[in-house]
Amino acid sequence: METPDEPLTVNTPEIRQSAVPWHPSLQTSTMENLNKQKETVFSLVQVKGTWKRKAGQNVKQGMKGRVSAAKIYESTSSSGTTWTVVTPITFTYTVTQTKNLLDPSNDTLLLGHIRDTEQLEAVRSSTKPLKRFIVMDEVVYNLYGSQVTDYLEARHVLYRILPLPTTEENKSMEMALKILEDVHQFGIDRRTEPIIAIGGGVCLDIVGLAASLYRRRTPYIRVPTTLLSYIDASVGAKTGVNFANCKNKLGTYIAPVAAFLDRSFIQTIPRRHISNGLAEMLKMALMKHRGLFELLETQGQFLLDSKFQSAKVLEDDSIDPASVSTRVAIETMLEELAPNLWEDDLDRLVDFGHLISPELEMKVLPALLHGEAVNIDMAYMVYLAREMGLLTEDEKFRIVCCMMGMELPVWHQDCTFALVQKSLSDRLQHSGGLVRMPLPTGLGRAEIFNDTNEDTLFRAYEKWCDELSTGSLQ
Amino acid sequence: METPDEPLTVNTPEIRQSAVPWHPSLQTSTMENLNKQKETVFSLVQVKGTWKRKAGQNVKQGMKGRVSAAKIYESTSSSGTTWTVVTPITFTYTVTQTKNLLDPSNDTLLLGHIRDTEQLEAVRSSTKPLKRFIVMDEVVYNLYGSQVTDYLEARHVLYRILPLPTTEENKSMEMALKILEDVHQFGIDRRTEPIIAIGGGVCLDIVGLAASLYRRRTPYIRVPTTLLSYIDASVGAKTGVNFANCKNKLGTYIAPVAAFLDRSFIQTIPRRHISNGLAEMLKMALMKHRGLFELLETQGQFLLDSKFQSAKVLEDDSIDPASVSTRVAIETMLEELAPNLWEDDLDRLVDFGHLISPELEMKVLPALLHGEAVNIDMAYMVYLAREMGLLTEDEKFRIVCCMMGMELPVWHQDCTFALVQKSLSDRLQHSGGLVRMPLPTGLGRAEIFNDTNEDTLFRAYEKWCDELSTGSLQ
Repeated sequence: METPDEPLTVNTPEIRQSAVPWHPSLQTSTMENLNKQKETVFSLVQVKGTWKRKAGQNVKQGMKGRVSAAKIYESTSSSGTTWTVVTPITFTYTVTQTKNLLDPSNDTLLLGHIRDTEQLEAVRSSTKPLKRFIVMDEVVYNLYGSQVTDYLEARHVLYRILPLPTTEENKSMEMALKILEDVHQFGIDRRTEPIIAIGGGVCLDIVGLAASLYRRRTPYIRVPTTLLSYIDASVGAKTGVNFANCKNKLGTYIAPVAAFLDRSFIQTIPRRHISNGLAEMLKMALMKHRGLFELLETQGQFLLDSKFQSAKVLEDDSIDPASVSTRVAIETMLEELAPNLWEDDLDRLVDFGHLISPELEMKVLPALLHGEAVNIDMAYMVYLAREMGLLTEDEKFRIVCCMMGMELPVWHQDCTFALVQKSLSDRLQHSGGLVRMPLPTGLGRAEIFNDTNEDTLFRAYEKWCDELSTGSLQ
Repeated sequence: METPDEPLTVNTPEIRQSAVPWHPSLQTSTMENLNKQKETVFSLVQVKGTWKRKAGQNVKQGMKGRVSAAKIYESTSSSGTTWTVVTPITFTYTVTQTKNLLDPSNDTLLLGHIRDTEQLEAVRSSTKPLKRFIVMDEVVYNLYGSQVTDYLEARHVLYRILPLPTTEENKSMEMALKILEDVHQFGIDRRTEPIIAIGGGVCLDIVGLAASLYRRRTPYIRVPTTLLSYIDASVGAKTGVNFANCKNKLGTYIAPVAAFLDRSFIQTIPRRHISNGLAEMLKMALMKHRGLFELLETQGQFLLDSKFQSAKVLEDDSIDPASVSTRVAIETMLEELAPNLWEDDLDRLVDFGHLISPELEMKVLPALLHGEAVNIDMAYMVYLAREMGLLTEDEKFRIVCCMMGMELPVWHQDCTFALVQKSLSDRLQHSGGLVRMPLPTGLGRAEIFNDTNEDTLFRAYEKWCDELSTGSLQ
C-alpha cells in the first residue's frame, strides 16, 4: 500500500482439486484471535485528489495533503485481516425564528438555509430562477396556499406545491413514496434545491423521511404551522412514518438543513391544538426549567387564549410570554438534542411523556392528539414520582393543576395498567435492558430511574385513577 | 437559561385585536440582518443526567460534567433568534476477512460485530439464546441454506431465515418493506440483534436500507457471496433501492455494523459473475494501484479460472493472487471511502466507471451485470483519457487487453453518444455544476477532470467505436 507504484510479486500457485486441508488455527474462536491481535492505526492524507493511508494516529498536517478525521485500524490474523473504520461526520442545521415569513421582501424561506456568505452572494446575484418543491398539509394549504403562491410568484421561483392530507393515519411510507414520485418528476438539484415542508409535525416528519432517502440525502426545510411542531418536530433531527400500526417505526436521524419558525401560523390553529403543543412545552419545563413551569402555571391560560400571538411588536420580547416560552422551550430542547442527535445515549430526558403514550396514541387513534397522549403519560408519571417520594403532594398538585389549566387531559380510560406494563416492558427490551424512565425530582428538575417495582407502579396507577378519572382533582 | 431555577418575570400584555403594525426593520432582508449579527457559542455540559449550555467555545473538562463535542451558535436579531447546531456523529464499522464462516466453531457470524470485550464476555457467558433475522438471496439460499441452518441450530440461535429473489429488477422499496414486515413480526432488539444479509450486492443494499430505516437504525451485517459484493458493497456505507427506473435513487449512508468476508462463497458463482467483480477491482487498480493492475494483467485469467480459491491454506498469503488482489482492492477502497463516508466531497475517484454505466445498466436491464456496465464505461473513459493525452497508446492498449483477458465487455451498442451526453449532463446537474470526471493519468494514477469539451468527447467516442465495436482491438 505504501508503494502502490511498485508491481506486486505474485507466484501463481497450482490449483489442487482437493478440499482445503483442516487447519488447527481455525478450530479456535476467530474472535479470541482477533482480540489478541496487535492493531495498526492508519491516518488518511489526500495528495492530488488521491487518499493515502499513513501509519500512525497523528500525521502532521504538512504543506501538502489534507488530513482526514477518519482513521482505519487494521489487524491481521491467520484467517485474514480486520479493518475498523472510525469516521466522524459533522451535521449542521439551523433553527431560525422569523417574522412575516411569507412576505416577499423576506428572503428567509428561499435563502435562509445558506450559511456560506459567498454562496449566498452567488445565488443572490444569479439571474437563474430558483427552483423549489413544496409539500403542504392540505388544511394549511387551504389557509396559506395563496400566500405561498404569491410569495413564490413574486420571487420568480420555479415551483411545484403538493398539498397532502398529512394526518397521523396517513403517516406512511406510501405517502413518502408519493412525495418522492412527484419530486422526481419535478426534478431538483440534490445539493442546492431543498424540499420545503409546510405543516404540522406529521407533514414535517414524512417530508423529512422522503428527503433523507432521495439520492441518499436531499436537504429539506421545515416550516412548522402548529405550536407542537414549532417547539418539537422543528428542533430535532428525527424523521419518520408509522409502520405495522406502530408510531414512527421507520425513519432516519437526518435534521433539516433549516427550520424557519414564524409564530403567526399558530393563530389559525384550533384551541385544542394549542393545548396539544403546550403539553410538549410542559415536558421541557418539568424536566429542565422551573421558570418555564411557573410561566405556564401563571400564563398557560393566557397563551391558550392569545394563541401565542404577541399583542404588538414589542421592543423587548423578553416580557412577552409567547416569545419567552417558545424561546425557552426550544433552547432546552436543543440542549438535550444537540449532544445526542442520533440517540446513541439511551438516557434521554426528552423521552418524558413518551414511554406509555405511543402505545396509547396508536390504540385510540384518532381520539387523542399526540400532545394529549403525552400529557396523560406525564400525568401518570407524576403520580409515580410522587409515589416514589420524588415529588411532594403540593408539587404534584401544582403540576396537575397546570395541565388542567392548559385544558389537557390528565387521564384516559384506555390507559390501562396492562398498557402501562406492556409499554414499560417494550421499553426495557429496546433500551438495552433498562427502562430508563425520566421522572421529575422537583419542579424543573429530573433524573433517569431504572427501578420499576411492580407494586409502586400499581399503587401510583390506582391513586392516579382514584384522583383523576373523574376529570378533576379531589 | 443560565439560571433555570429562577422564575422568569413576565408581564401579560393586553391583547389588541388590531393587526400587527408595520415595522420598518421587517422591510429589510432578514438574511442581511442575520449576517450582521454577533454570535454566541455555547458548549454543552452534562451534569447529573441533564445537559446545560455554557457560553464559550472551550469549556474545561472539569471534575464534574461530561462535555459534548456538539456546539450551539446563537444569534439574535429583531425578528428572533437563530440557533445553529453543529454536532459530529462518529460512525464505526468493521470489515473482517474470515475463513469457514459457517463452521459452528467459528463465532464470527454471531459475535464478530461486538467490539467491546466486556460486552462480548457478557454475551458469551449468558445462557439466553441469541436471536437473529437473516435475509438470504434465494439462489444463495439454495446453495448454502442448509449450512446456515445447521450453523444456527448448532449454536442454539432463535432465528428466522427469509429467502428473497434479490435481483436488480426487484431492488425496490416494496422488497425493503416486505423484509421489514417480517422483521417486525419476528421481533428483534434494536440494539443487540443485528439483521444479517447473505447474498450479492443487491441483497446487501436492500437489507441495509431496511435496517437503517427500522427504528431509525438497526444494526445489520453484510455477508457477501459474490466477488463484486466482497470488494465493493461490503466495504462502504451505501444502501439503496432503485426508484422510478433510476438506479439506487433511494437509500442511506448507514454502514453495516460489520461485514464478514469469506472467499469460499465465491467458488459457487458463475464465471461471468467473477468477471463482473473483477471490473470493480480493475477500477481501484486503474485509479490508485499500479501493482494491482499488473497483478490483474498477469493473473486475471488465473483468478477467473480458480474462482478466487487458494490452492491450499498458505502459510504466507502474500504470494496468493486471490488473497493479495482482494486485500489491495479492499484497502484502496477503504482509503477512498473512510474520509468521505457520506460523500460530502463530490470529487470521488471511486466514481470511475459510474458516470455512464447507471444509465446504460438500467436501459438494457437485465442484459448487463453491474460490473459489465461499469467496464464499458471505463473502457470509453480510457479512450477519453487517451484522447486528452493522459494515457499513452501503449497504456490504453494494456488496459483494454486486461479487460478482455478478464472476459469483460469493452463496448456496447446501447451506449450511444447521446447516452454519454445525457449521463454527463445529469452528473453536471447533480454535482454542483462540475462534471468531476475521474480519469486515469497513467497506470494506477488518476485525477478529477472538469473540462468536457464536446469535440474531445466525440472523437474519443468515435475511436472507441472504431476500435472496439467488433469486440477485438485492431
